[in-house]
Amino acid sequence: MKICVIGGGSTYTPELVEGFIQNFERLPLKQLTLMDLSAERLTVVGGLAERMVKVAGRPFELELTPELTSAVAGADFVITQVRVGGQQARHEDTVLALEHGVIGQETTGVVGFAKALRTIPVLLKVSQEMRAHAPGAMLINFTNPAGLVTEALLKYGGVRCIGLCNSPIGTQMALAKRYAVPASSIVLDYVGLNHFAWIRGVTIAGREVLDEVMADLLESDLPSLGYHRDFLTALHMIPSSYLRYFYLQHETLEHLQQQPQTRAQEVMAIEATLLEKYRQPQLSEKPAELEKRGGAYYSTAAVALIRAIATNAGERHIINVRNGSALPDLPEESVVEVPAIIDASGAKPLAMGRLEPPIRGWLQLLKSYEVLAVEAAVERSYHKALLALSCHPLVPSVNKARLLIAAINDKYRLGLH
Amino acid sequence: MKICVIGGGSTYTPELVEGFIQNFERLPLKQLTLMDLSAERLTVVGGLAERMVKVAGRPFELELTPELTSAVAGADFVITQVRVGGQQARHEDTVLALEHGVIGQETTGVVGFAKALRTIPVLLKVSQEMRAHAPGAMLINFTNPAGLVTEALLKYGGVRCIGLCNSPIGTQMALAKRYAVPASSIVLDYVGLNHFAWIRGVTIAGREVLDEVMADLLESDLPSLGYHRDFLTALHMIPSSYLRYFYLQHETLEHLQQQPQTRAQEVMAIEATLLEKYRQPQLSEKPAELEKRGGAYYSTAAVALIRAIATNAGERHIINVRNGSALPDLPEESVVEVPAIIDASGAKPLAMGRLEPPIRGWLQLLKSYEVLAVEAAVERSYHKALLALSCHPLVPSVNKARLLIAAINDKYRLGLH
Amino acid sequence: MKICVIGGGSTYTPELVEGFIQNFERLPLKQLTLMDLSAERLTVVGGLAERMVKVAGRPFELELTPELTSAVAGADFVITQVRVGGQQARHEDTVLALEHGVIGQETTGVVGFAKALRTIPVLLKVSQEMRAHAPGAMLINFTNPAGLVTEALLKYGGVRCIGLCNSPIGTQMALAKRYAVPASSIVLDYVGLNHFAWIRGVTIAGREVLDEVMADLLESDLPSLGYHRDFLTALHMIPSSYLRYFYLQHETLEHLQQQPQTRAQEVMAIEATLLEKYRQPQLSEKPAELEKRGGAYYSTAAVALIRAIATNAGERHIINVRNGSALPDLPEESVVEVPAIIDASGAKPLAMGRLEPPIRGWLQLLKSYEVLAVEAAVERSYHKALLALSCHPLVPSVNKARLLIAAINDKYRLGLH
Amino acid sequence: MKICVIGGGSTYTPELVEGFIQNFERLPLKQLTLMDLSAERLTVVGGLAERMVKVAGRPFELELTPELTSAVAGADFVITQVRVGGQQARHEDTVLALEHGVIGQETTGVVGFAKALRTIPVLLKVSQEMRAHAPGAMLINFTNPAGLVTEALLKYGGVRCIGLCNSPIGTQMALAKRYAVPASSIVLDYVGLNHFAWIRGVTIAGREVLDEVMADLLESDLPSLGYHRDFLTALHMIPSSYLRYFYLQHETLEHLQQQPQTRAQEVMAIEATLLEKYRQPQLSEKPAELEKRGGAYYSTAAVALIRAIATNAGERHIINVRNGSALPDLPEESVVEVPAIIDASGAKPLAMGRLEPPIRGWLQLLKSYEVLAVEAAVERSYHKALLALSCHPLVPSVNKARLLIAAINDKYRLGLH
Repeated sequence: MKICVIGGGSTYTPELVEGFIQNFERLPLKQLTLMDLSAERLTVVGGLAERMVKVAGRPFELELTPELTSAVAGADFVITQVRVGGQQARHEDTVLALEHGVIGQETTGVVGFAKALRTIPVLLKVSQEMRAHAPGAMLINFTNPAGLVTEALLKYGGVRCIGLCNSPIGTQMALAKRYAVPASSIVLDYVGLNHFAWIRGVTIAGREVLDEVMADLLESDLPSLGYHRDFLTALHMIPSSYLRYFYLQHETLEHLQQQPQTRAQEVMAIEATLLEKYRQPQLSEKPAELEKRGGAYYSTAAVALIRAIATNAGERHIINVRNGSALPDLPEESVVEVPAIIDASGAKPLAMGRLEPPIRGWLQLLKSYEVLAVEAAVERSYHKALLALSCHPLVPSVNKARLLIAAINDKYRLGLH
Repeated sequence: MKICVIGGGSTYTPELVEGFIQNFERLPLKQLTLMDLSAERLTVVGGLAERMVKVAGRPFELELTPELTSAVAGADFVITQVRVGGQQARHEDTVLALEHGVIGQETTGVVGFAKALRTIPVLLKVSQEMRAHAPGAMLINFTNPAGLVTEALLKYGGVRCIGLCNSPIGTQMALAKRYAVPASSIVLDYVGLNHFAWIRGVTIAGREVLDEVMADLLESDLPSLGYHRDFLTALHMIPSSYLRYFYLQHETLEHLQQQPQTRAQEVMAIEATLLEKYRQPQLSEKPAELEKRGGAYYSTAAVALIRAIATNAGERHIINVRNGSALPDLPEESVVEVPAIIDASGAKPLAMGRLEPPIRGWLQLLKSYEVLAVEAAVERSYHKALLALSCHPLVPSVNKARLLIAAINDKYRLGLH
Repeated sequence: MKICVIGGGSTYTPELVEGFIQNFERLPLKQLTLMDLSAERLTVVGGLAERMVKVAGRPFELELTPELTSAVAGADFVITQVRVGGQQARHEDTVLALEHGVIGQETTGVVGFAKALRTIPVLLKVSQEMRAHAPGAMLINFTNPAGLVTEALLKYGGVRCIGLCNSPIGTQMALAKRYAVPASSIVLDYVGLNHFAWIRGVTIAGREVLDEVMADLLESDLPSLGYHRDFLTALHMIPSSYLRYFYLQHETLEHLQQQPQTRAQEVMAIEATLLEKYRQPQLSEKPAELEKRGGAYYSTAAVALIRAIATNAGERHIINVRNGSALPDLPEESVVEVPAIIDASGAKPLAMGRLEPPIRGWLQLLKSYEVLAVEAAVERSYHKALLALSCHPLVPSVNKARLLIAAINDKYRLGLH
Repeated sequence: MKICVIGGGSTYTPELVEGFIQNFERLPLKQLTLMDLSAERLTVVGGLAERMVKVAGRPFELELTPELTSAVAGADFVITQVRVGGQQARHEDTVLALEHGVIGQETTGVVGFAKALRTIPVLLKVSQEMRAHAPGAMLINFTNPAGLVTEALLKYGGVRCIGLCNSPIGTQMALAKRYAVPASSIVLDYVGLNHFAWIRGVTIAGREVLDEVMADLLESDLPSLGYHRDFLTALHMIPSSYLRYFYLQHETLEHLQQQPQTRAQEVMAIEATLLEKYRQPQLSEKPAELEKRGGAYYSTAAVALIRAIATNAGERHIINVRNGSALPDLPEESVVEVPAIIDASGAKPLAMGRLEPPIRGWLQLLKSYEVLAVEAAVERSYHKALLALSCHPLVPSVNKARLLIAAINDKYRLGLH
């Protein structure tokens, strides 16, 4: 089995390598290829990876390359974790948004929209190489905005693809810890889109514990969440943490405007430190600092998903998948984030049924935005981009939407017309 | 035929009375009953109405009464045009909203939400009287927010009901003037909710003229609309004028915050002048000043609708009606504003088909808000009220939503719990 | 205005010509073109038509031609009433079906299936000529099986098209007579497919009279209908007369097997007599014998429909039209027979809402058959033909279906493969 | 854990008992209660069961009782395998149907309809006892017609319920054997209703083998299936064996009319032999003859299902479950037979997506029949019964339907009115 990681120079990569090393007996990997356009990243991150694999006794072969075609060729799995434009673009887009009084937010917000416009053409190029050189391979997309990118790949890429985010597994692990049970015994009634989802129920070995979990939230986490307790009580669901940008748009905008640094700037500082560490020739394991970077359980999620496919496990994972009839209130061809059965054929979503009114309309509006944003990226259409943001509740002015699109288009030479 | 007007003391009433007088030959009205709780309004507005009917040669009997039951008894049509709390409540709610940085807007905004909470119980009382004393009568609702109120009446009132707004007929009349054709030859592909609708096409005797109409808009009306031309070009539909609050939320909020007076205050001043006029014993016709009040073609729309029902005409009118399968992207039981065939059985909507992505999500979100708002009003539920506003894109903070609801609940003793 | 009749040599044509003559003042026809491949029919039927037009004072020009292209060129309306293979093919197909123990029936049965396979390619040729030589013209299809043929034209023909049948207007006229009211005051809640429809309600000036109409049926027409009264009472709808083949498959099959002649043979005899009459040079009006041919109100329906389009009337007619959301239990792209508003733009169906369980499944099965049958005809696909009949409840053996298709394919050289 | 078997005197029971004995280590059963109204059956079958449990070393307690309430009390699982009226009723109903020229068929046919009318009230009584005396218990229904009975229980019974049939597991086991792989590695794309289902795909460890399986069918099983190869080739799905009654209605009717005995008579003979064996005091294991009775893998399916629930396994089983959005072409509240994830919460179906035209209409018609049949049984409604059979393609005459219903109603005193 060959696994190829596009964007293999990411600072996350050591976590992933560690995962493959630790799970080697259950996941018979032969070759791991790290592909990255940055020679420096490939040297630094790849170098650490090589030392890690060596120390582990070389359970599999490691390849480092800047060439897309050869990296993809013959792969069984292609993991994409690219960041077109890097954290610098994220930083500048965030500042631009805030200057217009608009929340940036790099997944569901306008910064995510800009990232999607930059990224989707690159990933469609990856899928093109896969069709030619790794037919039948599975693309596992970690690239944000994961929902939009996965929808573009499934609609236009012509490859098998699953979109993965560490957020659902994070919730599951937290609940497993709280209840001191294995994560596998926790079942979430989870519905929505990536970074825009709600948990409608939680069972542990068949027992519904949502009331308890909600009570916990109200007692312990309320101040950090920012919601008044009456709202969570009325909602009686666990909203994804990113929903704060929508439910508390006024407050989060004000908060972001008061920050001395953008999140991108924080990440750049963390990454600089990390890369410094990675350069140390004596380091041959994932450094503790990596945890600050975010992305907890990223490796756990990826390895578990690949293993479920490779072993035809028939396990339940919460992933991004073509909707079909999973959520009949949303378009069939679109991508949703729901529980699905993973086996050697790929992902088959569970039938989650109708959405309740407090979440139905939100999901339908955001999906309209996503459908239009994907079309804008694929068709390089300025009008579609404008219509996409006209459906975006975090961009409450189509005139500002126009200015934001114009600025992004110029800056990144997107060629929208 | 007996027609009863609930809220007959409205300053609009002379326009309605004029309509019945002018159309007497085609609409054989026997008795017109104006019911109002305000003795003063009944005297002043009713007095003018009496003089108008007298001058016209008493084509029908006019009755003035503050009693609901007797007013409704035996009616064939009940027109509701009530304003619970008056313009003063509207003014105060608007100020309250603006203080929280939220657009008020008395139909689709939070002021409309407050009005719905006050008004729906009153109109359900009217429907109760109708069931008892005027079985089979048709309720024609003009009361704002017309969509919400009509949905409440159809779901919980147990009466036949059509919701009517002068906005669609206004557009039709403007187009008829522009093209110098009769209004009846203009057909609008009109979809949406009251004050939240789009025109997807305009035909004149079968010829599609949307491109021309859009070009006109871009040339002549653009500054007044506030949109950049690129947005309207991308949309390629005519948005309802109230959609500015959503598409240009930033701009309209800023504009409203800069106004010296609320719209309610302006209306109060206009109404004071109007009532002064109405008091003049020599006045026996609708004064010219009434036009400033808004509500152009109100009488035209009402008389045309009643006549279409009374004569089993089978004519097309754009009204608020139970959705059924008219817009299959919205709930069947909800009320939508679409073209419908009007005959003696009532209103049957046309099958308008799927909604396009740029408008679909918006309509689905607003309808989620409406469904929850109606339930909040009928169940007097604080939690439902909170969930309703959590779906409202003009209230971008659930914490502020809570404060607004608490203030409204206290002030109007709504008994939400 | 130019109207072109494809299959103008039909024995029905004099009725149509009479309709145009009588309605001349309300329908300003300039030229009527009768096109037919049969020189004899063109001479005989066309000759009578010429005498009729002459006697009427030549209100419009009459043209007779065997040429399709020139006939269609410049037409505003193209009426199609063709019978590929003639009554002889119908007769032979009926005999073939009965030999296999299968009901023929030339619209919803297997004889209609054979006719569709022969006819759809011919009508697609007509639509091709229209696209080239009469762009924007409206095709009015009378050709049976009208539902299948209209679906093929709308899906693959690229022309505006309405399918028309005289059956709904026949019911309306019968009810108008019974109640002594104008047909226009009768409104039918009519849902289904051509020759496979149910009337769920009947209102006269808004009054629901279905109970009365059902009582009449049970009292007077029961023996002729063949149903036990309990069934009609349980159904509480008026089934289309052709539904007897489905509801009483055993009985109607036995009846057909006992007939000395097929319906096609009867019609051939009637037509021979009619053509004999038409040949008489002194005849210059529609002969009384034409009534026996079937097709009552054919002319009424056609002229009324054309007039509604030509005058932008906005009237309600029951016709065959693209479903959209008229019947949300059936595919959007398919053709259904429902009330629609007719104006200069064409036909817009009313939103008829969900179907009741006793009729829903039947309509869904028959529509599956129709979808597959149209694809079989267009793709000349033997497998699709087999799948179509495997969904047909009047062909209760896929092995017999195979034999029937093989026989039809050979006989008419359909080229199914 | 307590498991209660209603109809525990069935000749199938030894197979079930054997399953519980063999799986004891993985399924910690404490008490097995066999309840049956027949004292003789309880003695004979229960006696054998006692000897089997004794020989196995009494891994669990065995209870025999004719009392429903005490049998159900405290149960965790209630298995229902009742046959109201016994094989004699089945025999007589079959003869009655054949006399009217109608296929009986005790699940999807009219004999199944009669059985449903007799059985549903009895099972609703069981569910009533469960609500009172075993709240939270899971009912596992084996009683035929399993789809109808399960739908009645889920809509009207107020208990958790899964309907189980040995047919899907039988297919899986046959394929596992053919490919020499474990059954768990075979995944079926299985859609439909009980005994009315199609397999649209077969994967083995992710590899699609439908083409191979179809080729096998065409080569080896074609004569026994009765289909012409062209039909199966066109269908390109594996139809449930019971679909022969629909696809080959003529042929199967003729075949049944020629049989010397009904299937019920055959079963009665087999059962007599079996009971004779069971009576032998030295017999303490399932006799080989039981296999002739049908119901292969019945025990395998039941034990596996119960174990998946008891251990919160999250495994995929093909069962009868509330549709939700599993098959969006069928009603949400209805029961369908599809793959579902089984864990401690019960069954959650997979989102199987839209149905293809060749099977969609059939499933929709049969479900209409089922919906009406369940309502007929619950409401004891003669009209609903008539409407149910009017939707049944194996009863091609509503007049005969009426005679059949009348006969059944009289014979079993069903009290339809």
